Amino acid sequence: MSHVWTQARRAARMNPSIIREILKVTEKPGILSMAGGLPSADTFPVDALKSACDRVLTQAPREALQYAASEGFAPLREWVAARVAALGMNVKPDQVLITSGSQQGLDLAAKILCDAGAPVAVETPTYLGALQAFTPFEPLFASLASDEEGPRPEAIAALPHDAPGTRFSYLLPNYQNPTGRVMGAQRRQDVVEASRRAGVPIVEDNPYGDLWFDAPPPAALSSLWPEGSLYMGSFSKVLTPGFRLGYVIAPTELYPKLLQAKQAADLHTPGFNQRVVYEVVKDGFLDQHIPVIRARYKANRDAMAAALRAHLPAGCEWQSPQGGMFFWIRLPAGLDAMALLPQAVDAGVAFVPGAAFYAQQPDPRTLRLSFVTLTPELIHEGVEKLGRVLHEALEPVAEHAP
Amino acid sequence: MSHVWTQARRAARMNPSIIREILKVTEKPGILSMAGGLPSADTFPVDALKSACDRVLTQAPREALQYAASEGFAPLREWVAARVAALGMNVKPDQVLITSGSQQGLDLAAKILCDAGAPVAVETPTYLGALQAFTPFEPLFASLASDEEGPRPEAIAALPHDAPGTRFSYLLPNYQNPTGRVMGAQRRQDVVEASRRAGVPIVEDNPYGDLWFDAPPPAALSSLWPEGSLYMGSFSKVLTPGFRLGYVIAPTELYPKLLQAKQAADLHTPGFNQRVVYEVVKDGFLDQHIPVIRARYKANRDAMAAALRAHLPAGCEWQSPQGGMFFWIRLPAGLDAMALLPQAVDAGVAFVPGAAFYAQQPDPRTLRLSFVTLTPELIHEGVEKLGRVLHEALEPVAEHAP
Repeated sequence: MSHVWTQARRAARMNPSIIREILKVTEKPGILSMAGGLPSADTFPVDALKSACDRVLTQAPREALQYAASEGFAPLREWVAARVAALGMNVKPDQVLITSGSQQGLDLAAKILCDAGAPVAVETPTYLGALQAFTPFEPLFASLASDEEGPRPEAIAALPHDAPGTRFSYLLPNYQNPTGRVMGAQRRQDVVEASRRAGVPIVEDNPYGDLWFDAPPPAALSSLWPEGSLYMGSFSKVLTPGFRLGYVIAPTELYPKLLQAKQAADLHTPGFNQRVVYEVVKDGFLDQHIPVIRARYKANRDAMAAALRAHLPAGCEWQSPQGGMFFWIRLPAGLDAMALLPQAVDAGVAFVPGAAFYAQQPDPRTLRLSFVTLTPELIHEGVEKLGRVLHEALEPVAEHAP
Repeated sequence: MSHVWTQARRAARMNPSIIREILKVTEKPGILSMAGGLPSADTFPVDALKSACDRVLTQAPREALQYAASEGFAPLREWVAARVAALGMNVKPDQVLITSGSQQGLDLAAKILCDAGAPVAVETPTYLGALQAFTPFEPLFASLASDEEGPRPEAIAALPHDAPGTRFSYLLPNYQNPTGRVMGAQRRQDVVEASRRAGVPIVEDNPYGDLWFDAPPPAALSSLWPEGSLYMGSFSKVLTPGFRLGYVIAPTELYPKLLQAKQAADLHTPGFNQRVVYEVVKDGFLDQHIPVIRARYKANRDAMAAALRAHLPAGCEWQSPQGGMFFWIRLPAGLDAMALLPQAVDAGVAFVPGAAFYAQQPDPRTLRLSFVTLTPELIHEGVEKLGRVLHEALEPVAEHAP
């Protein structure tokens, strides 16, 4: 140990991702993993991307390969501004910042908004990657009491507003990671009204909004309170995560500072990637492509719902998600998902223990299952294995019951 | 003004890049810009990239387009570890972290090493983008007294070492941006020795090291003190900046924390980009390609050196750089480069005022000229215009002289 390096105070709060460590284990061959939040690789539009790469490198190689504007590729920004109109948002292209995946939007937002010790409100539970992005900026996490529609408005109304003030609520209204839940239209109104009254702005993350099964979700929170919302979108779930392309839509008041943070972080998102994706999406490709993803994911959702009904022991609770990628399961009292994971992996199946998704007071009985990575047949097989592990785990509990 | 958003304390220290604002002005058609640090687009290997894109999307589309490991693409990490052996570095692939340009390496290093008020030492002058990357983490900048070989060892010896301790010195030993200077072998020894004694580790940034003209630079600082050095490299100047690919080589002690910061920042650098670049470089492409860039840049350097001798007024000072992309000019006493920029732009030529590159006490007489963006003919024309502006600016000074 050299002791030559002194680490920042914030570094002590940064810890290895549990999901990451789990994914390493579950990458062993033969394990049916429902752990990762990976979109189905069968949905990646390989041919469209291939010909778009060729067109970009034929038509504008010097521009695509040179340094570029930190704001992003102008035609792509225009496309994004037009696209979110379908979510009820009225946005100018100069409010759009192209980011290196929407994960980077979380990092940049925290960088310009979080002070050490100032509260940041998150859903219970919430996206683990957001907790990781915010943590280095040392916020005080406030876990919002939440139900099957997301955060309760009265929890937002009760957020601290004295200095240093709650900096924002981080909300995933559509098919939330990890719970799969969606915020209804009335809940959105109530959450925005409570937020406005409390003076707590909203960071709205919407990676899954396009992945609805029977009906699209209600209008974006950002459409109800444009000046109080920072909106994040992504191409990862509708095109490919491997290009790392997302975007932030910011109120005019915040945009310049966000842009400076972006410039300091990585100068700009790869211009080549932006131009290729623009080539793919500019003529309406997603209007044909997303319905294909929806149909596939809905069939997978149905397969997992059937498998869960068939194989999970009594006392397990879940709701069937109306979109997105995840089932959220609550195990019977006495079971601990984290403690059961090694047994599940031994049995050839993997999930993510839900405890990872809580800022405080994790519920050890919860776990997350992705239904989009495996085929319906393998989903059945995986859930059957998981069911066996749970049944076995419940036996000694039953034996010791009076 | 809504007052709904409260910004972080650090945001107040983040300001728009002067270079960025200048570049906007100089993007007007007809202006001969020697301002930007843009590599020559003529050097981008378009055909090699085009066929590599095609190969990656044919041979491994599912892997290239899926989420990937935060550390980076394993074969590319192995390639990097092998490549830096030529700089005297003995590195294992698991010390290599692939980043979204080496700019991101600066952001991640500051994130895990900088506390508010703790000193960070920088050269005088230094790379503006590093100042921008470090600033959000609120370091106390210590400007190291520097000469034509870079920082003076005695300045490093005098750095504060009481708590909170100088966290690192940020050093660009090869053809530094903005001065073009290179650290000699003895100076490297002395700087490392002083750093080791002072207990101040080194962040070594080496984007230009491959761009030498007559002889390669001495071994990397990191080769002299591996456990006390964080090394940053880039594909931007030898292949393309538009793919945003760089890397950090970290001592084993620091790697895990750096990796967590990377994961929180953007999950991973685009896997597609990493695989394409690996396809291009894996069989020795750079051994043929970099000499072509060197020859072109050397001819440009010669053209600018001749033009400066022909057109700049007496009293201007500069050294001819032995590599890289930049001349650094000091104007005669009484002139202010920033004040002259509007006149230069009116005359159809642009540069970057040197003041932007100082953490403290800018020298207003300095300016930076890139010699790689324009052709030799346009370099002559641009420097001639700049010379006229300087001659005119000196006339009133002369008139008012006693």
